[in-house]
Amino acid sequence: MKYELYYWPGIQGRGEFIRLALEDAGADYVDVARRPKGIEAMMVQMKRNGIFACPFLRAGSTVVAQTALILHYLGPRLGLAPKSEKARLWLHQQQLTISDWLVEAHDTHHPVGSGLYYEDQKAEAARRAQDFRRQRLPKFLAHFERLERPKGFTYLDLSLFQMIEGLRYAFPRTMQRLRYPRLAALHDKVAARPRLAGYLASERRIAFNRQGIFRHYPELDSG
Amino acid sequence: MKYELYYWPGIQGRGEFIRLALEDAGADYVDVARRPKGIEAMMVQMKRNGIFACPFLRAGSTVVAQTALILHYLGPRLGLAPKSEKARLWLHQQQLTISDWLVEAHDTHHPVGSGLYYEDQKAEAARRAQDFRRQRLPKFLAHFERLERPKGFTYLDLSLFQMIEGLRYAFPRTMQRLRYPRLAALHDKVAARPRLAGYLASERRIAFNRQGIFRHYPELDSG
Repeated sequence: MKYELYYWPGIQGRGEFIRLALEDAGADYVDVARRPKGIEAMMVQMKRNGIFACPFLRAGSTVVAQTALILHYLGPRLGLAPKSEKARLWLHQQQLTISDWLVEAHDTHHPVGSGLYYEDQKAEAARRAQDFRRQRLPKFLAHFERLERPKGFTYLDLSLFQMIEGLRYAFPRTMQRLRYPRLAALHDKVAARPRLAGYLASERRIAFNRQGIFRHYPELDSG
Repeated sequence: MKYELYYWPGIQGRGEFIRLALEDAGADYVDVARRPKGIEAMMVQMKRNGIFACPFLRAGSTVVAQTALILHYLGPRLGLAPKSEKARLWLHQQQLTISDWLVEAHDTHHPVGSGLYYEDQKAEAARRAQDFRRQRLPKFLAHFERLERPKGFTYLDLSLFQMIEGLRYAFPRTMQRLRYPRLAALHDKVAARPRLAGYLASERRIAFNRQGIFRHYPELDSG
């Protein structure tokens, strides 16, 4: 199966969670919006399929949006999900908690409106980021730190790698202060997977930057 | 099957999306946390099953959390989902967009932190609510207004009813100003379904209030 991934070019964002799964599995895929006229093609597909926001994936005649759902769909096809239906639902549930976590990470720099610049909401961002660093981030980390994951390797492991990677980029001081040894070990194990290591070193891996979901503003990383 | 729903007593919140499905289907269920010692029982289950936040549902030995996923699980069992797997994935995708919409509705009164009082984030809430009323709310409404829903009645219809109901409570002036004739008609059709009408008139339907997700603060509903 040849997959088509549709997501904003230029940022890792939500699309990266899908890229990591496709890359780790060595899947045959096109990152459509990074090609010439790709964004126009993306807009056409979104309208046609009643999709509120990217990323979305096309696999033959199937079109799936919503990051966690795309992974739920891809997981079994890429060998990144457990066999039983019950275990797959559980995995999807945990991935949805990652989606919630990701929104909160994003809103640290955009607590007022995603259509406004960070510079127009710096005061609000300072307060939201403080709450995130002190209350929410430790709570999410503790949840996944103690979670008993399935034995086999899954897309949840890839997503947890990406969360740790992104949070360390955005909040280096905070992440150095917090303790999450099991997640840190998982992060390193994932980064060393041969295909994934190749991807991370390639030009296909977009660098973190100040247009993405994880952004490093030193003033949001204190205290 | 006897279902156990676990959610905070005293608010509609996310649990209400599950209640509407169970009630409309005439399912046999217990709203556990509204019973004596129910909250303690909820906390025990959350720890045991690695659940980050309620609501969650117990059906025999299956425990499912995350509102949209609970509906994805329940839909076929309650006759509130289409038959084909492809159509079910599509429905789940749209429900996940409702989850995103709901977070944004909530964050109008809690843009800084859900653990803080509204009174401690009124200035930030005023700005976030303005962005919601002007940018995000019209965008979500337009998406669902033009969406071609499946022919049969589904949990998505129930959830759209609840969104309209909640938004009208929280933002009465804004919702009067905006145009969404198809969603308004759907809202009325859902409200008139016999079992649902009975539920809405019963004591089981908790009234909207200022502890829930949808809150009416007149100062957040202007302009």
